[in-house]
Amino acid sequence: MATYPRAVEVLIAALGRLPGVGRKTAERLALHLVRAPAKEVEALARALAGVKQEVKVCSLCRNLADRDPCPICADPQRDRSLLCVVESPADLAALEGAGSYRGLYFVLAGGLDPLEGLGPDQLRLDQLLRRLQDGRVREVILACNPTTEGEATADLIAHRLASLPVTLTRLGYGVPVGGDLKYLDGLTLSRSLASRQKLEE
Amino acid sequence: MATYPRAVEVLIAALGRLPGVGRKTAERLALHLVRAPAKEVEALARALAGVKQEVKVCSLCRNLADRDPCPICADPQRDRSLLCVVESPADLAALEGAGSYRGLYFVLAGGLDPLEGLGPDQLRLDQLLRRLQDGRVREVILACNPTTEGEATADLIAHRLASLPVTLTRLGYGVPVGGDLKYLDGLTLSRSLASRQKLEE
Repeated sequence: MATYPRAVEVLIAALGRLPGVGRKTAERLALHLVRAPAKEVEALARALAGVKQEVKVCSLCRNLADRDPCPICADPQRDRSLLCVVESPADLAALEGAGSYRGLYFVLAGGLDPLEGLGPDQLRLDQLLRRLQDGRVREVILACNPTTEGEATADLIAHRLASLPVTLTRLGYGVPVGGDLKYLDGLTLSRSLASRQKLEE
Repeated sequence: MATYPRAVEVLIAALGRLPGVGRKTAERLALHLVRAPAKEVEALARALAGVKQEVKVCSLCRNLADRDPCPICADPQRDRSLLCVVESPADLAALEGAGSYRGLYFVLAGGLDPLEGLGPDQLRLDQLLRRLQDGRVREVILACNPTTEGEATADLIAHRLASLPVTLTRLGYGVPVGGDLKYLDGLTLSRSLASRQKLEE
C-alpha cells in the first residue's frame, strides 16, 4: 500500500504534534508545503529557529519578550500600583490589544488544569508573592479565564494573597459587547443579571 | 502597544500563510512552539527542509515519490490497462488507502478552479495524452472530486480524450457507506436514486 514519500510522512507526523492539528489537517498542510515555493518553506523553518533563539522571558512579569525586562515592565509610564495576573501570553496580548489598561502584568504558566498535569507548583505563585514583596503594588486584578480551571486558579491565588495588604479584584462578568442574548449561555446571562448596574441619569 | 516579541510575530506570519490557518490559529500554534521542547521545534524545522530536498515527482504519474518512477508505476503487479486520473496526491492516497484498485494513476495539478488561477494549461493534459500514446491503457477512470470544479475538470478531460480508443469511466455517485440519509444533501440523494441497482436474488 503506497502512501506518501518518507519525507512527507515525517512532516505530517511533525505537524500532527501541534495542538489542534489532526492527521487530516497535517496531511493538507504538508501537501501544501511540498508544492509551495521553497522560499515560503525556508521562511517557516527560519522562523522556527528564530523563535527558539531569540525569544526571552521577562524576569519580572514572565511574559515572552525580546529583552529582559520587557517593554511593559520597563515603561516608566505604566502604573506600578496595579498588577494584572493572566494565565498566558495570549491573554496578556488580548488585554494589551484592548488598549485601556496601564498597569503591569504577571503571567502564570497557564491555567490550573489537573488534566494537563499543571498544579500549583507550575503556576509560579512563589514568584508572584516575591513580586509583591516590595509593597508598591496596591491592587492585584485576577484576570484568569472565565472557565472552571481559571476560577480554580483565581481562588487559589486569592487564598495565597489573602494575608497581603493588597486589594484583590477580578474582571467583571457579563454580556460581551456585540454579543447576542439569544446565543449566550445561561450562566453568562445569570451573571450579567447579578452584576447589573444602575443607568446613569 | 506591546504585542509579541519580533521572532514570535515572524513565526505567526509564516504560520498564517498556511492554508486554512488564520491569525488566531497561527498565534496559538506559535505560542505552543515557543514553549515546546527545542527538540520538537527542531524536528519540525528539519522535516520542512527534508520535504524540499527529498521529495520527487514521478515522471509517469506525477505523484509525489521518493524515487522516479514511483513504487506504484514501477510495480509489475499493477494492471497497466487501467489509468485512474485524480486531482491531487491526497486523492490518490485516499484511493490507495481503500486498497481495492490495482491499476495505475495520473495526478493532475489539482482541480480546474479558475478562482485559484488554475486553467487547462496547469492540468498537464498534454502529459496525460502522451501517457496514453503507447496504447496500453484501455480504460481511463476520471476520479475527479464530486464538486463543480471537479466535474468541469472531468468534462474537459473527457472532451480531449474523446478521439482516443480508450473507454472513459467515472466513479459511481451515491450514498456513502456508513452515511446517514437524513444528513445527506438532495443532489447526492437524487443521484443515488438515479444510480439505483437491482438487488441480487
